[in-house]
Amino acid sequence: MGLIVQKYGGTSLADSEKIKNAARRIVKEREQGNDVVVVVSAMGKTTDDLLALAYEITDKPNPREIDMLLATGEQISIALVAMAVQSLGYPAISFTGPQVGIITNRVHQRARITNINIDKIQTALQQGQVVIVAGFQGASYEGEITTLGRGGSDTTAVALAARLGADVCEILTDVDGVYTADPRIVKNAKLLSKISYDEMLELAGLGARVLHSRSVELAKNFNVPLHVRSTFNSKPGTMVVKEVPEMEDIVVSGVAYNRNEVKLSILGVPDRPGIAAELFGALADANVVVDMIIQNVAADNMNDISFTVGKEDFETALKVTQEVARRLKAKDVIYDKDIAKVSVVGVGMKSHCGVAATMFRALAKQGINIEMISTSEIKISCVIKGEWCDKAVQAVHSEFELELEKAANVPR
Amino acid sequence: MGLIVQKYGGTSLADSEKIKNAARRIVKEREQGNDVVVVVSAMGKTTDDLLALAYEITDKPNPREIDMLLATGEQISIALVAMAVQSLGYPAISFTGPQVGIITNRVHQRARITNINIDKIQTALQQGQVVIVAGFQGASYEGEITTLGRGGSDTTAVALAARLGADVCEILTDVDGVYTADPRIVKNAKLLSKISYDEMLELAGLGARVLHSRSVELAKNFNVPLHVRSTFNSKPGTMVVKEVPEMEDIVVSGVAYNRNEVKLSILGVPDRPGIAAELFGALADANVVVDMIIQNVAADNMNDISFTVGKEDFETALKVTQEVARRLKAKDVIYDKDIAKVSVVGVGMKSHCGVAATMFRALAKQGINIEMISTSEIKISCVIKGEWCDKAVQAVHSEFELELEKAANVPR
Repeated sequence: MGLIVQKYGGTSLADSEKIKNAARRIVKEREQGNDVVVVVSAMGKTTDDLLALAYEITDKPNPREIDMLLATGEQISIALVAMAVQSLGYPAISFTGPQVGIITNRVHQRARITNINIDKIQTALQQGQVVIVAGFQGASYEGEITTLGRGGSDTTAVALAARLGADVCEILTDVDGVYTADPRIVKNAKLLSKISYDEMLELAGLGARVLHSRSVELAKNFNVPLHVRSTFNSKPGTMVVKEVPEMEDIVVSGVAYNRNEVKLSILGVPDRPGIAAELFGALADANVVVDMIIQNVAADNMNDISFTVGKEDFETALKVTQEVARRLKAKDVIYDKDIAKVSVVGVGMKSHCGVAATMFRALAKQGINIEMISTSEIKISCVIKGEWCDKAVQAVHSEFELELEKAANVPR
Repeated sequence: MGLIVQKYGGTSLADSEKIKNAARRIVKEREQGNDVVVVVSAMGKTTDDLLALAYEITDKPNPREIDMLLATGEQISIALVAMAVQSLGYPAISFTGPQVGIITNRVHQRARITNINIDKIQTALQQGQVVIVAGFQGASYEGEITTLGRGGSDTTAVALAARLGADVCEILTDVDGVYTADPRIVKNAKLLSKISYDEMLELAGLGARVLHSRSVELAKNFNVPLHVRSTFNSKPGTMVVKEVPEMEDIVVSGVAYNRNEVKLSILGVPDRPGIAAELFGALADANVVVDMIIQNVAADNMNDISFTVGKEDFETALKVTQEVARRLKAKDVIYDKDIAKVSVVGVGMKSHCGVAATMFRALAKQGINIEMISTSEIKISCVIKGEWCDKAVQAVHSEFELELEKAANVPR
C-alpha cells in the first residue's frame, strides 16, 4: 500500500487506444493496492496544432491568450483518461491545474509553481478515486490560467509527488528509460538501470529529452524517486535517485549531445573589468539564457568572448550583442549556427582523473576539432562543428566502453 | 455609446479566416464607441469531434467528465478570438465561464445559470477591453465545471446581456435571420424584420434552429432585445422584441416544422382518474420531456392516450410507458417514429378566428391526414406522417400568403 504518481506524456496518449492502454496500466497499479495520482500531457500533437491555429490568427499571439489556448490540451486528456479508468470499473475524477489548487506566479508561458493546495486530491484519494490531474498548467492567485513551459507536465508530476509524499513518481514515456547515449546514434547504447539526480540533471540539460531538467531539479530538492519507463511494455526502466557511494565506481554514465545551440563571439573588446558583466547583464535583461562562456585574453590587451545560446534565443542574443559591441567599440560580432555540443556525464568524475583527456583523445582520433570546452564537477562538454556530432558521440561512447555490462569505463 | 453583447456561433468561427472576420465585426462595433462583450461557441464541429473521442473510449461517458471535455471547445475559441481582436490593435481579454463568475447548479450536461458575478467583466470594460466570454459553460459553487446543454451559448449571451443591462444582444449566425418558413423548403419564404418573444419562443420550440427556446425565454423575462443576423453580411436581420399592439395585425408570422419527435400510444387503459397522472408522472421521473398529449375516450370505457417525445428520449419513454402499461393492464403500447409536426405561429391569432380552419383546409387540399392537433394562444400544431412534411409546410405557407410583403395573411 503506497502512493504513486504516474505521468503520461503526449505520445502515451496519442489516440483512444493508447488512452485505454494507459488506463489499464493505471488500474493495474490500483489493483496492487496503491493510491494513484495521474498527471497527463496533451494528446499527441495537440499542443502543436493549437499553436499552429494561433499563428494562423496572428504573428504575435498574446502570452496570456496562448496559455488560455494551450491549457485546453491537457484538459481534454484528463477527461478522456478519467472516462477510460471509469470504464474499467474504477472510480476516477479529473481536475484541471487551476481547479485542483496548483498555484503559480503570473509569468505566462513559463510560470513557476509557488504552492499546491492538496485538499481536493487527498479528499478524492480517501474516497478511493483515481485522481487525474492536468499537467503543464496552473493558475495565479488572481485566477489567471498559466502554463509552465517546456517539461511542464513532468514538473507538475514531481511537484505533486513531493507535496503528497508519494513513494515514487513514474514518468511513462515512449522510450524504455535513460541510455548511455541516444540509441538512434549509438546502436549498442546501454539502458541504465540507475542514475543519480545530478547526472540526470546534466543529461537533461544536455538535450537527452527523456526528462526536463526543471523536474529533475525539483525531484532532487525534495528527494522524490523518479522512475522513467515505457508506457508500452513492462520493462524495468531507469530509476533516478539520490547519489549513493557505489555510483562513483562508474566514472561515466552517459554521452549526450545538443544541436540546438548557436555560438556567438564578440571580438576585440577592451580587457578591463566590467565588460563581461555588461554583455551578460544585457543578455539576461533580454531573457536570453546563456550556456557556455569562454574568454580569451589576446596579446594586444583586447579580449574575445564567445558564448552559446539556444536557437530560439539567437535573434534576440545577436541584437543585444551587436548593441553592446557598438557601445564598447568592439571590432566585430560573429556567429556559427552549425555547432554541436557533445558531453560526458558521471558522478565518478569527482574522484577519477583523466576523463577529460580520454574524451579529447577520442575526438582527436577522429580528427574532430574542439572549438569550446566547459567542465563541471560531473560533466565535460565540447563544442564541435555540427556535422561531426554523430561521429563524436559514437567515438566517445566507444572510448569509454559504455556498451559493456558492469562498466569497465575507467579512463585508460 | 452603448453596451452590446454579441454571440458568435460555431459556424461563424469554423476556421481562422472566419475568426478574423468575426474580429473585424467586433472591432467595428468598438469603433462606433460601443462597449462590447462577446460570447463564443466552440469552433465548427469541435464539440462533435470531442464527443466522438469520448465515445471511442466508452459507451457511457461520465457526465462530469463530458463537461470537463466539452468545456475546452469554447476555451479554444475565446483565446483565438481575443488574439484576433488584439491583432487588429484593440485590447481584448478572454475568460472561461468558471473564471468570469458564471455560477450554475450542479446538473452536468444541462446546468442552469443561478448567478453571474459581473465584477471581472465590468473591470475589464472600464479598462477599455473587449471582453470575450466562453459560452455554454459555468461552474458550480464547489468549482465543478458544468455545461448548459443545447443552446447553451445563446443562454450565456442573453444572461450576460440581462445582467449587464446591455442595449442589445446580437446573435450572429449563418442565416440572415428568422424567416416565415425554412427557406430550404419554402423557396419564397420571407425574412421577418421583427417578431415577438412569444412567437420566437414557439418557433424555437418547434424546431426553427436559429435560437434555442431557453435563451428566448430568458430574453423575454428580462426584456433583452435580441437581434438575429448573419455573421457574413451586414443585412439588418430580425429583431426579437416585446409584443407591440400592431403586431396583432399579422395573424400568422411563420410556419415551423419538427421531425425530431416520436409518437407513442398506450391503448386500452381504464377510464378512471389518475391514469394520466401515473403515466406522465413516471415519464417526468425518468426526465423525459413530453410535448403533445391527446386522450380519446373510447366507447367501452377504455382510453387511448397518445403523446410525443423527442427522439433522444424515445427509448427511455418506451420503457417507462411499457412498465406503466403492465401495471395498468393496458392492451398495448405502439409507437410511430416517422412523424412530423407542422405548426403556424402568430400573436394575431389571439384576436382573429379561423386560423385553425385555414390550416386544416390547406392540409386537406393536399390530401394530408392529421393525426394529432394541439393549440396554444398563438400556435396551432398538427402531427402528420413524416413523408408529408415539406409539402405541408409549403401548402400552409402559401395558404396564409406569407410570401407577400405587408402580410395580407388574414384567414380567408
